[in-house]
Amino acid sequence: MSIGQIRVNEIFGPTIQGEGALIGQPTVFVRTGGCDYRCSWCDTLHAVDSAYRDDWHPMTPQAILMQIEILSGGKPLMVSLSGGNPAIQPLGSLIELGKREGYRFALETQGSIAKDWFAALDVLTLSPKPPSSGMDTDWQKLAECVEAAGSETQTVLKTVIFDDADYDYAKDLAARYPELPLYLQPGNHTPPSPATADAPIDMPGIMDRMRWLVDKVAGDRWYTPTVLPQLHTLIWGNLRGV
Amino acid sequence: MSIGQIRVNEIFGPTIQGEGALIGQPTVFVRTGGCDYRCSWCDTLHAVDSAYRDDWHPMTPQAILMQIEILSGGKPLMVSLSGGNPAIQPLGSLIELGKREGYRFALETQGSIAKDWFAALDVLTLSPKPPSSGMDTDWQKLAECVEAAGSETQTVLKTVIFDDADYDYAKDLAARYPELPLYLQPGNHTPPSPATADAPIDMPGIMDRMRWLVDKVAGDRWYTPTVLPQLHTLIWGNLRGV
Repeated sequence: MSIGQIRVNEIFGPTIQGEGALIGQPTVFVRTGGCDYRCSWCDTLHAVDSAYRDDWHPMTPQAILMQIEILSGGKPLMVSLSGGNPAIQPLGSLIELGKREGYRFALETQGSIAKDWFAALDVLTLSPKPPSSGMDTDWQKLAECVEAAGSETQTVLKTVIFDDADYDYAKDLAARYPELPLYLQPGNHTPPSPATADAPIDMPGIMDRMRWLVDKVAGDRWYTPTVLPQLHTLIWGNLRGV
Repeated sequence: MSIGQIRVNEIFGPTIQGEGALIGQPTVFVRTGGCDYRCSWCDTLHAVDSAYRDDWHPMTPQAILMQIEILSGGKPLMVSLSGGNPAIQPLGSLIELGKREGYRFALETQGSIAKDWFAALDVLTLSPKPPSSGMDTDWQKLAECVEAAGSETQTVLKTVIFDDADYDYAKDLAARYPELPLYLQPGNHTPPSPATADAPIDMPGIMDRMRWLVDKVAGDRWYTPTVLPQLHTLIWGNLRGV
């Protein structure tokens, strides 16, 4: 792989963003391969586990932008950079090239690696992982990510919630960053294995956790976060490429 | 009913807003009774059809605010004013009183009646009704609503879509107001009758229309609207009071 190339797992769309601040907005996804985390409930193992690295293709920023332009019919829209952890990749050139053509860029990362080019994003979603993930949050690194994004980028927080410990983690997160919008997302206990991309989804379970989460924030008089399920799993199940 | 009183159908919450620009945000709903429209697929007939007017209680702004404060534990949040058509009611005093206590106010209306107090709202959602409703849009009235809200209020458009004619109507709406955010919402073909408030919901049908709508905007390279289903119907079905 040459310097400047990006490891791409999949490029697809236009579809709608299914999560967080941009929920419902048309977008093309660029999913990069590779991650510094191994969350217990990871729902994109095909972009994380190195067993699937043969599916990660080194591409130049120019080649990626060309694919985005083909998918979008050359009409600019929001591009969603996801992973894995896309912050591992050298995405600065892609963002710069795309913005020249009128495209906008949103990136989601757990906030474990800060990059200067975060400041060139339109939207940065920092999604630190709660206790149920089995990962530890490096709060210093998260702070570096917020700082790297600066004031021109719209920075928001999102965290997945499976249980009470995750909920307490979210409250701590909100206390650390009271000025940033926070999105709470009920976890999906049945992420598919990469080999069964269209595995059935536990819709009743997700809805149960969604109702539980709404009751929690209402009962606690915690009115600042936004509570949203993964809309794409409700619409398309665990199907990939939509 | 005395002057200044408001006809209230129900006050409930805190729950989350299920639609549009504030989707997922904690809120208390104040639903007023009475409507100048009779949409074919109305999903809140209990707040529209005068057969249910015995369930509409005249309340003073002070009494409504007290109920909001009890439900919210005295902690300010966004209050969602809905109906029926809440623009029929004299809501200016309630908004003024509530804002003094730190509450914020969002209102949704079809845009058939403009009121000066729209300018005191935090968010105004204008939801003109497409052809499938059987109603005609008075574009002059809608323009008066946009003007009444002024520049301090965040004004957004939302429209329900059941079919191709509704979709074309949405495109016309977007062309008339390119500067306003537009939310497209797949219609619910199985709204409950007021007598069966927990009637089962046609989840597969709603999801089919949601997928169809995403495909439509993607295929048309129409990237400016936000496409969102009614989240509350997915979470709670047609149950009232949530």
